[in-house]
Amino acid sequence: MSEVKHNTLEPLGSLSMTDRVENILREYFTENGFKPGDSLPKEMEISQKLNVGRNVVREALSRLRMLGMIETRPRRGMIMAQPDLLAGIEKVLNPLLLSQDNLKDIFELRLILEMGISEFLFARKTDKDLAELEDIVSKQKDAVVVSKEEEVAFHGKLYEMTGNDTFKRFQNLLMPVFEHVFTEYYDKGIHRDIPNPVTHHDLFVYLKQGTQEEFRKAMYQHLEVYFKTITAR
Amino acid sequence: MSEVKHNTLEPLGSLSMTDRVENILREYFTENGFKPGDSLPKEMEISQKLNVGRNVVREALSRLRMLGMIETRPRRGMIMAQPDLLAGIEKVLNPLLLSQDNLKDIFELRLILEMGISEFLFARKTDKDLAELEDIVSKQKDAVVVSKEEEVAFHGKLYEMTGNDTFKRFQNLLMPVFEHVFTEYYDKGIHRDIPNPVTHHDLFVYLKQGTQEEFRKAMYQHLEVYFKTITAR
Repeated sequence: MSEVKHNTLEPLGSLSMTDRVENILREYFTENGFKPGDSLPKEMEISQKLNVGRNVVREALSRLRMLGMIETRPRRGMIMAQPDLLAGIEKVLNPLLLSQDNLKDIFELRLILEMGISEFLFARKTDKDLAELEDIVSKQKDAVVVSKEEEVAFHGKLYEMTGNDTFKRFQNLLMPVFEHVFTEYYDKGIHRDIPNPVTHHDLFVYLKQGTQEEFRKAMYQHLEVYFKTITAR
Repeated sequence: MSEVKHNTLEPLGSLSMTDRVENILREYFTENGFKPGDSLPKEMEISQKLNVGRNVVREALSRLRMLGMIETRPRRGMIMAQPDLLAGIEKVLNPLLLSQDNLKDIFELRLILEMGISEFLFARKTDKDLAELEDIVSKQKDAVVVSKEEEVAFHGKLYEMTGNDTFKRFQNLLMPVFEHVFTEYYDKGIHRDIPNPVTHHDLFVYLKQGTQEEFRKAMYQHLEVYFKTITAR
């Protein structure tokens, strides 16, 4: 185990000893091609080889454990594990803590994702999915303004229909932040003044019977009030 | 500070004491409306109030420090900070560790994002951006197959042109995983047999002079070899 080589002398900045040990360990795993299930050196061995205190090593390992990169198994000790891709992002999605720039970015990211899924929806839609979606929209009575729960039910079903679990989970994570930011914009006077609003029911009909181009155009119109904010600022 | 209330008796599963303290602390921050800059209770105080050892508290705090949620400032002690949205995901994006399902999902996620950005590109493109993009494509001599560096240069510039830093960083993070998965698919016999390939130069021309619809259609054709994999399996 050796630390990153420095070609130039740069300030170590705010890197603590724990940050450095964490970085060294992740680099060590990558460079040695560790795979899930592989046994890892013990805490004490790492402490001795790196010549750092056990408390520091324990903290660094605890961070990796949080990300799902390592696990401790009875009788086997510490092993490499399959990390949870979204564990970190899930933990920090607190609108009160994120910067305004981050919140704006997340707001826009949902729009990008929402506009990018039509290929997947048309490639993977099934009769069963469409029946479930019809059930969801029939309860919304072709309303232009729906409740937060109805919004989540409809768009959440679309995310599920992409057949991509990570995407589905990611979009669902972003939703509360999206709500938070939109409420701010809404309060600033961007209102639902679209002349011919496209409802969830309309989107369902295009997805069932229309072309992919028609569906995508309708989705744009459905989200138009949000798209207005990307050029309005 | 109190732990989550349980309405039903459920197994605690694999939650360690550190996991529990970490969850309690994040919940405490959210429920009390902590904002970046706010002072936080000291390690010893947390340890006493929760009646858990200081080592456990130190580990939980170290995890939050890694996510950028808390910082220690000279003379001020521990304060709430602005977390880095992508810190967690960045650390686990090691193709050797992620599951095949996660890798497939990330591969598809890039396609979804790539197809979703046309509204942003057309709303925000500037003459300066287009000049820089022209410079990038002019070096690629209208080639159908480009190097990895040329691929990153072109698509990376598009991500930058969205004006969304989080999106740009996220897409750049996904790129190595995308390469990794595509190489696997490619080896299985999905080849570049598209009759009329759309090059980076073509995409540039559509972005500069064409309509948003033309650009998006061209982007689909440009990525068609990848899209084949989403229905081929």
